[in-house]
Amino acid sequence: MSLLENIRGPRDLKALPPERLGELAVEIREFLVQAVARTGGHLGPNLGVVELAVALHRVFDSPADRILWDTGHQSYVHKILTGRQDFSKLRRKGGLSGYPSRAESEHDVIENSHASTVLGWADGLAKANQVLGRQDHVVAVIGDGALTGGMAWEALNNIAAAKDRPLIIVVNDNERSYAPTIGGLANHLATLRTTDGYERFLAWGKQVLQQTPVVGKPLYESLHGAKKGFKDAFAPQGMFEDLGLKYLGPIDGHDVAAVESALRRARRFHGPVLVHCLTEKGRGYAFAERDEADRFHAVGAMDPLTCEPLTPSSGPKWTSVFGNEMVRIGAERPEVVAITAAMLQPVGLEKFAKAFPRRVYDVGIAEQHAAVSAAGLATGGLHPVVAVYATFLNRAFDQVLMDVALHKCGVTFVLDRAGVTGDDGASHNGMWDMSILQVVPGLRIAAPRDADQLRAQLREAIDVDDAPTVVRFPKETVGEALPAIDRIGGMDVLHRGDRPDVLMISVGALGSVSLAAAALLRERGVGVTVVDPRWVKPLDAELPALAARHRMVAVIEDNGRAGGVGSAVAQALRDAETDVPVRDFGIPQQFLAHAKRGEVLADIGLTPAEIAGRIGATLARLTADEQHPDERHRSDDTARS
Amino acid sequence: MSLLENIRGPRDLKALPPERLGELAVEIREFLVQAVARTGGHLGPNLGVVELAVALHRVFDSPADRILWDTGHQSYVHKILTGRQDFSKLRRKGGLSGYPSRAESEHDVIENSHASTVLGWADGLAKANQVLGRQDHVVAVIGDGALTGGMAWEALNNIAAAKDRPLIIVVNDNERSYAPTIGGLANHLATLRTTDGYERFLAWGKQVLQQTPVVGKPLYESLHGAKKGFKDAFAPQGMFEDLGLKYLGPIDGHDVAAVESALRRARRFHGPVLVHCLTEKGRGYAFAERDEADRFHAVGAMDPLTCEPLTPSSGPKWTSVFGNEMVRIGAERPEVVAITAAMLQPVGLEKFAKAFPRRVYDVGIAEQHAAVSAAGLATGGLHPVVAVYATFLNRAFDQVLMDVALHKCGVTFVLDRAGVTGDDGASHNGMWDMSILQVVPGLRIAAPRDADQLRAQLREAIDVDDAPTVVRFPKETVGEALPAIDRIGGMDVLHRGDRPDVLMISVGALGSVSLAAAALLRERGVGVTVVDPRWVKPLDAELPALAARHRMVAVIEDNGRAGGVGSAVAQALRDAETDVPVRDFGIPQQFLAHAKRGEVLADIGLTPAEIAGRIGATLARLTADEQHPDERHRSDDTARS
Repeated sequence: MSLLENIRGPRDLKALPPERLGELAVEIREFLVQAVARTGGHLGPNLGVVELAVALHRVFDSPADRILWDTGHQSYVHKILTGRQDFSKLRRKGGLSGYPSRAESEHDVIENSHASTVLGWADGLAKANQVLGRQDHVVAVIGDGALTGGMAWEALNNIAAAKDRPLIIVVNDNERSYAPTIGGLANHLATLRTTDGYERFLAWGKQVLQQTPVVGKPLYESLHGAKKGFKDAFAPQGMFEDLGLKYLGPIDGHDVAAVESALRRARRFHGPVLVHCLTEKGRGYAFAERDEADRFHAVGAMDPLTCEPLTPSSGPKWTSVFGNEMVRIGAERPEVVAITAAMLQPVGLEKFAKAFPRRVYDVGIAEQHAAVSAAGLATGGLHPVVAVYATFLNRAFDQVLMDVALHKCGVTFVLDRAGVTGDDGASHNGMWDMSILQVVPGLRIAAPRDADQLRAQLREAIDVDDAPTVVRFPKETVGEALPAIDRIGGMDVLHRGDRPDVLMISVGALGSVSLAAAALLRERGVGVTVVDPRWVKPLDAELPALAARHRMVAVIEDNGRAGGVGSAVAQALRDAETDVPVRDFGIPQQFLAHAKRGEVLADIGLTPAEIAGRIGATLARLTADEQHPDERHRSDDTARS
Repeated sequence: MSLLENIRGPRDLKALPPERLGELAVEIREFLVQAVARTGGHLGPNLGVVELAVALHRVFDSPADRILWDTGHQSYVHKILTGRQDFSKLRRKGGLSGYPSRAESEHDVIENSHASTVLGWADGLAKANQVLGRQDHVVAVIGDGALTGGMAWEALNNIAAAKDRPLIIVVNDNERSYAPTIGGLANHLATLRTTDGYERFLAWGKQVLQQTPVVGKPLYESLHGAKKGFKDAFAPQGMFEDLGLKYLGPIDGHDVAAVESALRRARRFHGPVLVHCLTEKGRGYAFAERDEADRFHAVGAMDPLTCEPLTPSSGPKWTSVFGNEMVRIGAERPEVVAITAAMLQPVGLEKFAKAFPRRVYDVGIAEQHAAVSAAGLATGGLHPVVAVYATFLNRAFDQVLMDVALHKCGVTFVLDRAGVTGDDGASHNGMWDMSILQVVPGLRIAAPRDADQLRAQLREAIDVDDAPTVVRFPKETVGEALPAIDRIGGMDVLHRGDRPDVLMISVGALGSVSLAAAALLRERGVGVTVVDPRWVKPLDAELPALAARHRMVAVIEDNGRAGGVGSAVAQALRDAETDVPVRDFGIPQQFLAHAKRGEVLADIGLTPAEIAGRIGATLARLTADEQHPDERHRSDDTARS
């Protein structure tokens, strides 16, 4: 029987003699590679934190002590050690989440996987401990990449100021988040990593300098006030200590005993302390260790021995259509530059970066800076294309509004993974953008329905130089081309109904779903005209008149329903005094559990059958109302119920 | 003739002999006190940057060189020096903006006044200069308070990494933003301020140590590698240099010659450099210099000799109603804690802080941290009340959604200055919150209409412990009490119409506007029932049935129209298959120019007369449609226009 099978919780782990921990680490790595190869998931980050997770659960007493993981995709080992070893349905419907989950375990705290949050959570939990007089510990694990996020800075500034509030920050320093970490902080961490050690210098210094009299007293003593200065010179933890954090490190993050020892020291310290651990992403899996491009950060299901994907991808992905077009645009337009927030490869900018290395900026996990520096670039005469996952743009909402839009800057935001993404759960669905961006004056939103439209609309977006533009598209494979059969105003007509019953407004990638729903309705004798507005903000000026010629309007969108395109269409009709009934079909305004994208769409009713059924029901009600108009307004003399 | 009158632009300033600059500074301060006393505006910050602004415009060549002001309320002196000396209508309709304004001058760049943005702008502008091969300079002025914002960190990390890209950061360090600056960074800056000077030490050290042989060679030489360490010990600029920024300072920010000299050195340096200037907020105006509570940060119109307000306030303000109720709640409920983002006094938490000093947290200009640390506090068993200006919550949208709401944390956000604020222009209007927060699952929004409702709804909000709650109210004085005459579901009935023509849904502080509009319609024989839903998210379950008993619904809200309460009401009706026409009256989705709140409301048509007129027109159209139903759907056989 393996060691791992007997670890049902932190208690079992604590009981293990230290000399068996190396064996356990090997078992955990084998388990991870096999399990993640079967389902897909985050491999590299978890291979890097095996010893760290083991040490944390041996030194601290979760759940009373809070062990917090930033960007929860590094929590698989923590899951294994806290009673969750059934990875067979990892990230699948009904299986383990790919992130911590309070529903799964009392050992989990932070569910969301937007980076750089953990220090803020830790600060709040430590403050609560202080107010309530609890002696429990709070330990936050954060990667060097996540430290580039502004939230981390805001938290560090607060944590460091409270000298009497214990809080342990473990920096998991693997020199990369997705790609190698960028920026001044990364350089500073590198200095810490390469230092020869302050202690060794100090021993030498003491010996030599005590024998050296200066102006009557030993030089060592007279330089005592310079201690911190000396320390910085030979182990320049300066930055963190300047802020007021005690610094321990750097520690070899793959030496359990060393990590345990540092954590025990940190545990005894009655104030904020930072433990700097050096780890290797992908550790122990040769394919991952060797891979410069970090393709093992997150993987699909694969053969663990050959790394060949089990289900080869079918057809081009939205991301690569965008990436290839950017290279063509870059060659034609020297003023186009690109910005990524630590995700050059996942957002498809790798080829652009190779072709135009001086025109691409990786700003770190820093969406706010991506947006505001884009405003500066645009004001300086360039046209930046900011490529991020749709859900991460939420981090930069204020900057899109107050920096880019208020200043009428021509900046194009390209939102990948818009709509339902599925596997990664609630925090990764890109279901917010088309709602919150509706409020931004002047901003334009394109939702391309196929590869041709993506290429065309990307160019149209980059042509706008006095307002922010957004191009949003989903995860996965681009579907078949959906040619327009006509145009009305700026709207593409995808299908024309025999009768003017329903005007169906199909947004972006849901074109084929809309056409299928229209086909089902046609079978029932309902005439449906399907249009793709292409630009969903602003809406086409001809839309109200077109709507007025139909009995009802249906809007189909892969976005949260609250304040989405459906709401915008309804408002445009109200403003035109066009009171045609509108029905909107989108994502219900809930946090959606992880499952495959198709499963989620089925669960929430974004299927042709469901859409057709509900439209049919509304039409039937409208017919009944028209036949019995008196029952429509059951007016009485007062407004009372 | 005064010196100031002859300064029509930077060129005139450069021509002035250095020995006249002290005189000029005195004139500028006199001008500022007189001008701001007349109109109200930001006084303290501008009195502190007189010499700095003078030096900047003498050393650099704006507008080719970009002089950027963070949190633009410190730009008055810059305005005076760039040809704008008519302050008679400062912040008033048609007058100078209280912030930089591109429409006013080519010397202005950043218009918005959300703090901590300037370094991001500077990074973008410097990158554009580099790509386009321009040799112009970029200079960013940022306060020590604004450095606590995460955006500043993200930018510093990027700026510091590019050693070959010139960019000058001027830290205007007055030890306070609104209140004294908080946190580890503030402590670090304090260390910098109190240093005796590295240069002086170095001179001494060189002299002494060169004469001291150690192991065969001079000690000075053998310690040469420790130079940076020494430097940190005696002038511990450590943090910034650790990041990779050259550091100059600290400089006396009221010594023009010293500032000019430092700026000229910085100008010659071919990389990122930080100039640390010490200034005194309110400098030269005795009232402001002496005021600990920083009440001269922003002032209303006042007598400059006595500081008495010219127009005494009439009746209690929303802010103080909130502040007083918080003290009562704090006494009753030990689990309630409060969070402010560097605005303890402006948001009304001063009394709470005095009563419960260990239960209030000033996190710095760090709304993200306010929200995410609140999630931690709530998870730790407390109930945090986060009080911010409505417009600043935009900075924390992702954290409200992904940290507070996803984790079902009981956190109450109190949004002051919601709706039209007026004087401070586009970036201060709180017109976004009720739209973007609509998308947040589980979140509840209260919009109290009067002081009694604010007190009651604040308590209702704090009673919710499994979801975020929001209480939003406007600037200025609370109006008269508007008692309910009845309740329908959870909705207060404020007025009952004689006939079921119009259901008017009045949101929050617009109660009296709604009632006045209803009175005007009544004069025309239209029956209007006015209800206040109190909680605008979620909407009351009885709303659709109530709406169905009326000919139309009108929603009146002090919020941007896109995706606001009007849209939510319309969607609720659609979902209930209730196709009653809806009209929504709110703020048009535009950036509004500065003017008095009342003037803005009139300009955008949020007046009883305008609302009544438009409702009347819709009713007339509905009547016409009912009389000629055939013209309603001008159906034809195709959907073509």
